[in-house]
Amino acid sequence: MEKGEEPINGFGVAEVLDSGHPNFNAGDLVWGTTKWEEYSLIQKPESLFKIQHTDVPLSYYTGILGMPGITAYAALYEVNSPPKKGDHVFISAASGAVGQLIGQFSKMLGCYVVGSAGSGQKVDLLKNKLGFDDAFNYKEEPDLDAALKRHFPDGIDLYFDQVGGKMLDAVMLNMKVHGCITISGMISQYNVPELEVLSNLMHIVWKRLSIKGFTHRDHHHLYPKLMETVLPYIREKKIVYVEDVVQGLEKGPAALVGLFSGSNFGKQVVKVVI
Amino acid sequence: MEKGEEPINGFGVAEVLDSGHPNFNAGDLVWGTTKWEEYSLIQKPESLFKIQHTDVPLSYYTGILGMPGITAYAALYEVNSPPKKGDHVFISAASGAVGQLIGQFSKMLGCYVVGSAGSGQKVDLLKNKLGFDDAFNYKEEPDLDAALKRHFPDGIDLYFDQVGGKMLDAVMLNMKVHGCITISGMISQYNVPELEVLSNLMHIVWKRLSIKGFTHRDHHHLYPKLMETVLPYIREKKIVYVEDVVQGLEKGPAALVGLFSGSNFGKQVVKVVI
Repeated sequence: MEKGEEPINGFGVAEVLDSGHPNFNAGDLVWGTTKWEEYSLIQKPESLFKIQHTDVPLSYYTGILGMPGITAYAALYEVNSPPKKGDHVFISAASGAVGQLIGQFSKMLGCYVVGSAGSGQKVDLLKNKLGFDDAFNYKEEPDLDAALKRHFPDGIDLYFDQVGGKMLDAVMLNMKVHGCITISGMISQYNVPELEVLSNLMHIVWKRLSIKGFTHRDHHHLYPKLMETVLPYIREKKIVYVEDVVQGLEKGPAALVGLFSGSNFGKQVVKVVI
Repeated sequence: MEKGEEPINGFGVAEVLDSGHPNFNAGDLVWGTTKWEEYSLIQKPESLFKIQHTDVPLSYYTGILGMPGITAYAALYEVNSPPKKGDHVFISAASGAVGQLIGQFSKMLGCYVVGSAGSGQKVDLLKNKLGFDDAFNYKEEPDLDAALKRHFPDGIDLYFDQVGGKMLDAVMLNMKVHGCITISGMISQYNVPELEVLSNLMHIVWKRLSIKGFTHRDHHHLYPKLMETVLPYIREKKIVYVEDVVQGLEKGPAALVGLFSGSNFGKQVVKVVI
């Protein structure tokens, strides 16, 4: 690294080697905002969570037991009303860390759940491992509206959006009256030279939709509840969680870039210390 | 009218000349969905409201005491949380039937209220007759974002949207975190050859916005409450209500078309029977 450059931040798991903060001791394991480097000086450790349970893979604290877990849990239980039995739920980026959880939780709540993802392998994962009722590869659908109509002939009650853009636009056409859209990301619209035009925003009025954006940051108080719920599910294998772990910090940049084309399979994790 | 053609529907006030329905008698005054003609056969009169109070102009039942009144009341009290004292409220199409009411009610609730409208005369109405804190003519603002930043240096808590399009897009940039957008129309995007591109939808997530679309139809149960609240305000002149009445059914088409360019001044009414 050149002098004056700062390593980028990200959510990670780390071991405390030394600490001047009374809440943290050498040997503690923590998750939270860490840096892309082997050894970090963390000056505001208050935002870190201490890891209490080590009978599950530590990498899970970057996903199902970390920020994406909080995101999924908030999306389901706190941002809009929770899904009800029989609701028709659509999830984009469904094989990612957040989508996997929202889908499996929605199934537990008795919903009909369809996910979209960007490869046949991911669609297979959703249908055959994660228990989604159905799934489709959006990259093979020339007409997203038609794809959604095929999967939701009676419309969508709840859409969990992480991609935005033309998928969100097609969803508008297929929402039920009084449907809810919960948005935690719009990855299709990040770093693009030209934004996709949304033509169907008028459905917000016509269908009296409720749209809420959120980030995990407002929902960290949910963490104990998430742990209480999810940890037993993991131990009893009632929930499946798929990660895509690459080894070595030097693989980090490619892994990050790969997220935008969807080359990861499940939650992307970079293992820095091998 | 040619044989087989049907007159268009609209919200109107009418006198019952004859009735086969037990709830309606000759001489009753009603408001609701009537037709653009002098004499109408209304086959489903159940949706009509009987007019009980005739000490106010009957035309008010097409506006402040009718559908736009319900729309404004629902926007304020039922769709999102009501505005709180000190909230910074922005209203587009602010001199229209709905905007006038939302603005005056928001002022009564102790909010800072700014409206946009499409002429200097309308801006003057908002500032000097309707009690808005400020107002601007959007047609004279080359940069809507800059106009909003000028009026809301600390951001917007609540936006009541009736226009959609590039105004909605500029508002996204100026919403406060956790702000609410209540949408009852997107008139700028009706009947246009090309929809305006919205570039700022990502602010829905970044600012954790709540966006709700609605129509008056879900809120007719509020009507008694609206009457109870607004009728005394009208009688005591605590509320100002501005109408643009044209005389004669033949003026109807031009008045309707004028709505899309904003040539009306206040609630557009067509008086059919002179």
